[in-house]
Amino acid sequence: MNDPSLNREGAKSREIRLKSRLVGMPSADNFELVTVPVPRPASGEVQVRNLWMTVDPYMRGRMADRAIYARSARPGKEVPEGAIAEIPASNSTMYGWRPSFQVGEVLEGGAIGEVAASDDPRFKPGDLVSSWFGWRERFNASAASLQQLDTVGLPPQAFLGVAGMPGLTAWVGLLKIAMPRPGDVVFVSAASGAVGSVACQIAKLKGHTVIGSAGGAAKCAFVKDIGVDHVIDYKAAGDLTEALLHVAPAGIDVYFENVGGEHLEAALAAANPFARFAICGMISQYNATELPTGPRNIMFVMGKSLRLEGYDIATYLDFMPEFHREMTSWIQEGKVTWRETVDHGIENAPAAFLKLFKGENFGKMLVKLG
Amino acid sequence: MNDPSLNREGAKSREIRLKSRLVGMPSADNFELVTVPVPRPASGEVQVRNLWMTVDPYMRGRMADRAIYARSARPGKEVPEGAIAEIPASNSTMYGWRPSFQVGEVLEGGAIGEVAASDDPRFKPGDLVSSWFGWRERFNASAASLQQLDTVGLPPQAFLGVAGMPGLTAWVGLLKIAMPRPGDVVFVSAASGAVGSVACQIAKLKGHTVIGSAGGAAKCAFVKDIGVDHVIDYKAAGDLTEALLHVAPAGIDVYFENVGGEHLEAALAAANPFARFAICGMISQYNATELPTGPRNIMFVMGKSLRLEGYDIATYLDFMPEFHREMTSWIQEGKVTWRETVDHGIENAPAAFLKLFKGENFGKMLVKLG
Repeated sequence: MNDPSLNREGAKSREIRLKSRLVGMPSADNFELVTVPVPRPASGEVQVRNLWMTVDPYMRGRMADRAIYARSARPGKEVPEGAIAEIPASNSTMYGWRPSFQVGEVLEGGAIGEVAASDDPRFKPGDLVSSWFGWRERFNASAASLQQLDTVGLPPQAFLGVAGMPGLTAWVGLLKIAMPRPGDVVFVSAASGAVGSVACQIAKLKGHTVIGSAGGAAKCAFVKDIGVDHVIDYKAAGDLTEALLHVAPAGIDVYFENVGGEHLEAALAAANPFARFAICGMISQYNATELPTGPRNIMFVMGKSLRLEGYDIATYLDFMPEFHREMTSWIQEGKVTWRETVDHGIENAPAAFLKLFKGENFGKMLVKLG
Repeated sequence: MNDPSLNREGAKSREIRLKSRLVGMPSADNFELVTVPVPRPASGEVQVRNLWMTVDPYMRGRMADRAIYARSARPGKEVPEGAIAEIPASNSTMYGWRPSFQVGEVLEGGAIGEVAASDDPRFKPGDLVSSWFGWRERFNASAASLQQLDTVGLPPQAFLGVAGMPGLTAWVGLLKIAMPRPGDVVFVSAASGAVGSVACQIAKLKGHTVIGSAGGAAKCAFVKDIGVDHVIDYKAAGDLTEALLHVAPAGIDVYFENVGGEHLEAALAAANPFARFAICGMISQYNATELPTGPRNIMFVMGKSLRLEGYDIATYLDFMPEFHREMTSWIQEGKVTWRETVDHGIENAPAAFLKLFKGENFGKMLVKLG
């Protein structure tokens, strides 16, 4: 049966739009909440009422003027608004490079919702679906742009975290990029986070010695709880290289990079020959408005035959089915756990997003809608 | 017939020893010339009179206190002389990490020589051999530590350059590390050098558009002569990123890194998504005594899914036979050429080595002995 709130005139939805491009630390002023009508779904369309949406650090890149990256390579050079001088438009298309969000338009991101009305035989009211239409309460979309969600007994929001894109990001980065070998020591930064905590647990499941860094006693205690061998509280550690070498006196073989800056320098210093770095994120750098300091010991890449490899999970989506099978089993067997920080209401989504850059989330940051 | 200079007392040799560890730009004072007796070869030994020796930038690393690298990661921390805190001794052995030269001992490096006397049936006087016993005029060594050299009609010193370790370094870095794909644009720094000029020519033979950087008009003319599509004179170019994007408006897909510093930043800025960097050398950084500036746009490794991979040619010596077959054919067919700068006499070997860091060599730097 279709949602009774859908009268002849349709329903309403509130959504978050980008009000201005981000420069430096994002603030609430960069966003605006707008109410829009949602008509009855047209033929072949489905109307979805979102239950959960995710906020993730990578979204910041799509909210900023990407040209800041170009400027960081070219001190003193101004690049026109919107220009991505160093990434030719042809490549943007070719590699599915996600375009920037446009000012005045609704944002996008992962969401889990419930079908409210359907004019497509593949979906019926009450079905759970995952989509790319986050940052809004309700929407119409073509059936082809939605995915049926079988939660296999897990809470639905797990598919925005440990069993969703962040989990896949950890699984791919560790197993397909860094490819640890038996006996390898694995270092994971932001080890209490949505991605890092999964990377740590997979590395433990695969039999590795794991070192994790996190900020503050509570997060460090959680990292210890999920089985990590050595935890570094980077806020209290002083010299991070010293701290890392202290717990990894024989060096590290794999670095799962989420942070950048001093973390990257410490990992380069502690790396054993032939160590592999999965470069997943560098959250310490995202809000920089001036040229950040690069890793001063980059020469170790040559001197110790290191491999540093960046990746965009969009390139590896074909692993999703394999990942899903493995991860849902691990969760059902109690081998993988996770933490969530849940804020409520679409109007609080920007504030939830901002928490990511202040380390105020604990584990996966989510917004519960409806 | 054995060398007639070998009287009953044996011969003499002059050799270059490390007088003091290098700090900053090396100088003649770091080396000393010493005359030593060379007795008749013992049973199973061969006496070799060197004809050619090589000087290469990588040697600097073995002449310095390696701990300088550790310090570069740990500002303000002193590391005891000789300590390589970040590379555990177990790994040094495990991966064949070459130890530092010791002060007061003769240096080592590639050399081509002629057998002067032999007490092993595998070698006879007049045979050409290649060895690791450079930096000396004459030496005795076990037959097992020498390799017969069949020059296949090439000048013997080619096996210290284009057909030797530098050539293999170019071949491996390009074909086994960066692995260019059809249509890729390849950027090579130090493109007139012993390694870079070979990397450029192999990339052209494989059908790629090639961009090379070199310092000064003469070197740039040579780079153009060997078929490189676009040459950047980095000494005259001003902003290197601008210069690179000017000749590679659609970006680069492969970077063969010999230089570091501004070159690395330019390559990161101009890289297309999924570009691969073979990190062979960073000569601009070798003499740094203070913390160098790291690449400020390192975040592109993540944002553009780049792979940066350092390597030590010692790891890839098993490719030598395949490389030799391919390279000697290319040379015989006139498809690969090279330049040499030749200094004469063991007493001038340190000065020849110093030229490498001032860009005063042109192509392969060699010292002719005897």
